[in-house]
Amino acid sequence: MDSYNTPISDMYFALTSLANIDEFSSNSQNSDVSSENIKLLLEEAGKFAKEKLDNINSKGDHDGIKLENGLVRMPAYFVSAYKSFIESGWFSVVGDKKYGGQDFPWSVLVLINEIWESANMSFAVNNMLTQGAIELIQEHGSQLQKDRNLPKLISGEWSGTMNLTEPHAGSDLSDIKTKAIKENGSYLLKGTKIYITHGDQDMTENIIHMVLAKLPDAPPGNRGISLFLVPKYYKDKKGNKIKNDIKVVSVEHKLGHNASPTCVLSFGENNNCRGELIGDPHLGLKAMFTMMNNARLNVGVQGIAIAERAYQKALSFSKERKQGFSLDTENKEIVKIIDHPDVKRMLMEMKSQIEAMRGLAVITGETIDYSKKFSNTEEGKNYLNLSSLLTPIVKAWCTDQAVQITSLGIQVHGGMGFIEDTGAAQYFRDSRILPIYEGTNGIQALDLLKRKLSLENGKTFKKLLEKIRKDSDLCKNNPLDDIVEMGLILNSSIDSLEIAAKWLVEELNKNPKNAAAGATPFLNMFGWILGGWVMCKSSLNAASDETNNLSDQFYKDKIKTSLFFCTTYLPSASSLLSTVKNSYKTINTII
Amino acid sequence: MDSYNTPISDMYFALTSLANIDEFSSNSQNSDVSSENIKLLLEEAGKFAKEKLDNINSKGDHDGIKLENGLVRMPAYFVSAYKSFIESGWFSVVGDKKYGGQDFPWSVLVLINEIWESANMSFAVNNMLTQGAIELIQEHGSQLQKDRNLPKLISGEWSGTMNLTEPHAGSDLSDIKTKAIKENGSYLLKGTKIYITHGDQDMTENIIHMVLAKLPDAPPGNRGISLFLVPKYYKDKKGNKIKNDIKVVSVEHKLGHNASPTCVLSFGENNNCRGELIGDPHLGLKAMFTMMNNARLNVGVQGIAIAERAYQKALSFSKERKQGFSLDTENKEIVKIIDHPDVKRMLMEMKSQIEAMRGLAVITGETIDYSKKFSNTEEGKNYLNLSSLLTPIVKAWCTDQAVQITSLGIQVHGGMGFIEDTGAAQYFRDSRILPIYEGTNGIQALDLLKRKLSLENGKTFKKLLEKIRKDSDLCKNNPLDDIVEMGLILNSSIDSLEIAAKWLVEELNKNPKNAAAGATPFLNMFGWILGGWVMCKSSLNAASDETNNLSDQFYKDKIKTSLFFCTTYLPSASSLLSTVKNSYKTINTII
Repeated sequence: MDSYNTPISDMYFALTSLANIDEFSSNSQNSDVSSENIKLLLEEAGKFAKEKLDNINSKGDHDGIKLENGLVRMPAYFVSAYKSFIESGWFSVVGDKKYGGQDFPWSVLVLINEIWESANMSFAVNNMLTQGAIELIQEHGSQLQKDRNLPKLISGEWSGTMNLTEPHAGSDLSDIKTKAIKENGSYLLKGTKIYITHGDQDMTENIIHMVLAKLPDAPPGNRGISLFLVPKYYKDKKGNKIKNDIKVVSVEHKLGHNASPTCVLSFGENNNCRGELIGDPHLGLKAMFTMMNNARLNVGVQGIAIAERAYQKALSFSKERKQGFSLDTENKEIVKIIDHPDVKRMLMEMKSQIEAMRGLAVITGETIDYSKKFSNTEEGKNYLNLSSLLTPIVKAWCTDQAVQITSLGIQVHGGMGFIEDTGAAQYFRDSRILPIYEGTNGIQALDLLKRKLSLENGKTFKKLLEKIRKDSDLCKNNPLDDIVEMGLILNSSIDSLEIAAKWLVEELNKNPKNAAAGATPFLNMFGWILGGWVMCKSSLNAASDETNNLSDQFYKDKIKTSLFFCTTYLPSASSLLSTVKNSYKTINTII
Repeated sequence: MDSYNTPISDMYFALTSLANIDEFSSNSQNSDVSSENIKLLLEEAGKFAKEKLDNINSKGDHDGIKLENGLVRMPAYFVSAYKSFIESGWFSVVGDKKYGGQDFPWSVLVLINEIWESANMSFAVNNMLTQGAIELIQEHGSQLQKDRNLPKLISGEWSGTMNLTEPHAGSDLSDIKTKAIKENGSYLLKGTKIYITHGDQDMTENIIHMVLAKLPDAPPGNRGISLFLVPKYYKDKKGNKIKNDIKVVSVEHKLGHNASPTCVLSFGENNNCRGELIGDPHLGLKAMFTMMNNARLNVGVQGIAIAERAYQKALSFSKERKQGFSLDTENKEIVKIIDHPDVKRMLMEMKSQIEAMRGLAVITGETIDYSKKFSNTEEGKNYLNLSSLLTPIVKAWCTDQAVQITSLGIQVHGGMGFIEDTGAAQYFRDSRILPIYEGTNGIQALDLLKRKLSLENGKTFKKLLEKIRKDSDLCKNNPLDDIVEMGLILNSSIDSLEIAAKWLVEELNKNPKNAAAGATPFLNMFGWILGGWVMCKSSLNAASDETNNLSDQFYKDKIKTSLFFCTTYLPSASSLLSTVKNSYKTINTII
């Protein structure tokens, strides 16, 4: 079996050349996050991932989880891996320093998270949700809530979950039925939540559920939803540990993520489920969505991670498997399949997309970092707007492509790809949830159309296009022909994107349904073009004379990979303009 | 749960308007295959499929098959469904009339096969392979072999399998190790074959394995492979039924097709596996490939079938599930998700692709029919060449799209799509083998490039383009604006296709590896453009004044669906020219 290897060169390149971690680090007076430190950290994380997480990924998929006496049992080797994980301090990369966290910037977090998600997504999704809970409590919790929960969550001794969906309320939460009633200073919750990832498990001492529910005096719709902190165990006044009234009704049998329990949770069947209000009454959905914006970036990162893992497996197989003859007439030996141009092309599709996606995620992470660093200033607001614009694209584009890339991973394996023991199929299955959860990709496309394109009256979008145009102009003036070529292609695709956006914004005012019919093709178009931009930027930097620690070959490969990306995907991205503008004309045939 | 419904209107349209079954029927003096008879037949088949096959599809996926004492046990309800299936005479739609077959033309068979494959692919794949065995024996068997085997295979009492792959020999069969030695007038076989679909099962009395093996005096490579008929049971000279020396070593645990046993078969472990040579020594691979050409068409049909089933399920769900509000400001009710433009767009993607693929399969089937009818004439040869050109495209394009379409089917379901009980995930899993078996889609692309583009020195390709151009010209002169628009788009895409083909053919002579790097993008481009042609042809016919039994709405919808197809997919198909011509420049980065 192959095993996971951290793509350290490309990660380091993204962090130093697309983002500028050293500049951020010196601006923030945070010497922990110098590029050299982070490189070592990524190497260490990769080692842990390879030795403790990747090696149990396929086994976890096979064994799955069990529901026994109303409690979820993880595979025993997940429990012990989790123990090592928190003992090694890997959990505390997030979170305020005063609560024990290392408060790493997002540009770094996306890479660390990628490593865990590549190695074992069923395991890592627990971190992802706990990171969300930490963020929610940090931003909206009372001092007491912070003091009580953050140290335990940041250390990883406790975990966090997100409880939004109900059977009739998924993409639209306005009509949730879960109720909360105030009683003796705390709240009693009652209701059923579904699709709760790691809704129960036996790896942590306690689980902090973040639950959306309605207070009795709630106004109707989205403005009447409050956020509650509902622990699996709490302490009564005497300090006794009490099991809260939360029942695991069932766990789902899913296409993938088999070692990640997806629970139906029933709160308050015995009318005794205790929770605490987080933040202001009725403003819970807003708090949840602030946090979800970053969670969406993380789901995009999951897409990159699973694609990377599928790529590594396919690449490794292609170097072992011998089959068929070379098309070179002089070579009469049976060759490794990597020598077949069609196999190379599939691998190049995977590689080039992964690098573009990773670069985009790191750039988005850096944007969030600066938005926080300069919060409450004009500059910070600009960064915040830009990250808000980019996030739905990272989420949807990277996860749609993850499904394609893991599918290509199967294809490279031929017949063996369809056999579960090979392992390629698991990545394909695991990837399929990513375009769905944390807001379906269709919801992301509508978010982009309705809320993000109009940020600052369209200026955020405009400024981003200007950046891309500037880089494409730099490409056109580069001495290397390859870079000139990609610059020209990028340039013409931006024109199409601008026309599409203009049409959509106008149509959204006149006939919102017409615009909505073009939302997804527009998001895809935007994703490919941002990917092209990232690859052009990468090539400009790779071609520059600045010295660094990477071998020359890496730079040469980066430029070729970028050229592949631009010549393969940008022409069809531009052609999506037709889909954006025409879809509404015909789709009402579907009734 | 939803259930399968035969898309009878679209099937009938394809058969009468894209193909002309009544013309073929009168030319062949075969009144059984008049359009009216076939319509009734398809309706009956659909009824059987819905009531006896579709209803056990999900259960079969869940229960899977068992290997007990070296024999495969199918789920009991598969055994009884199979019994009804052959009792109702559904097996005998293929095969010579003198052996009990009804010898239906391929244009009809692709539709009948689509019905079974939509309803239950694990079940239907057995028919597909048996049809292949019937064809092989009809074409290449001795009179005795025909007399002994065809009546049983055509009735469905016996089944057939294809034994090609060995652990080290998949896409490339030149190096197979299975041996056959002549002894007392028959042959003794020895070797191991893998990935044998329905390699064993307990639905039929006997199984006829068609096995590729090498004789002792075999020349090396592909020209030394012979074809053998190896029955599971045979009769000795006294008429006693003897179990042949064939062992089911194992059955594979697969991503999908869980109720279809995929076996590792060991022939002759006790040096007593009896077989008969079919056709001439050493010419087995050629015989196998003639048959496989039609099998490849059938795999393309499997793609259409699973896409259709996924579409029906998603459509049905979208009409039940309520979620979110309409973008129309006047409507304040929660709506069915089919009312959301993005959901309609996904469904339209599915519908329009399925109709294009179905039309293309029926046209290809009709081409095969005429090639047989006029065999040994110039006209027949032309038809044969055209069908040879179209087949790899139907196989690869329809199956690649099947994976995309079943993935969209999951997406329409949102979170429920990822839950296995919903059923959408099974289609996604089941679809994933289709781009792999019967020659991977990469192999199809190379076949198209190396053998099919050069048929008649390129004339076959040229004549097809002329046909498409003629239809696009008819569209441009049509009174309906929608049809004019699609004609214009089709026209410009043919230009790109022609440039791509010209470049490929030239490059194939100079630098075959460069051409090979563009083979798959070219096949995809060709697939989309053929799909556009089918939809344009469909629209021309739908808009014509000829009367028929279908409602007007069907025709209006057909034109809108075609317009969606052309505006959505043809611009990006044209843009694949860049990928075809550029891929070779960069893929050697992958090492």
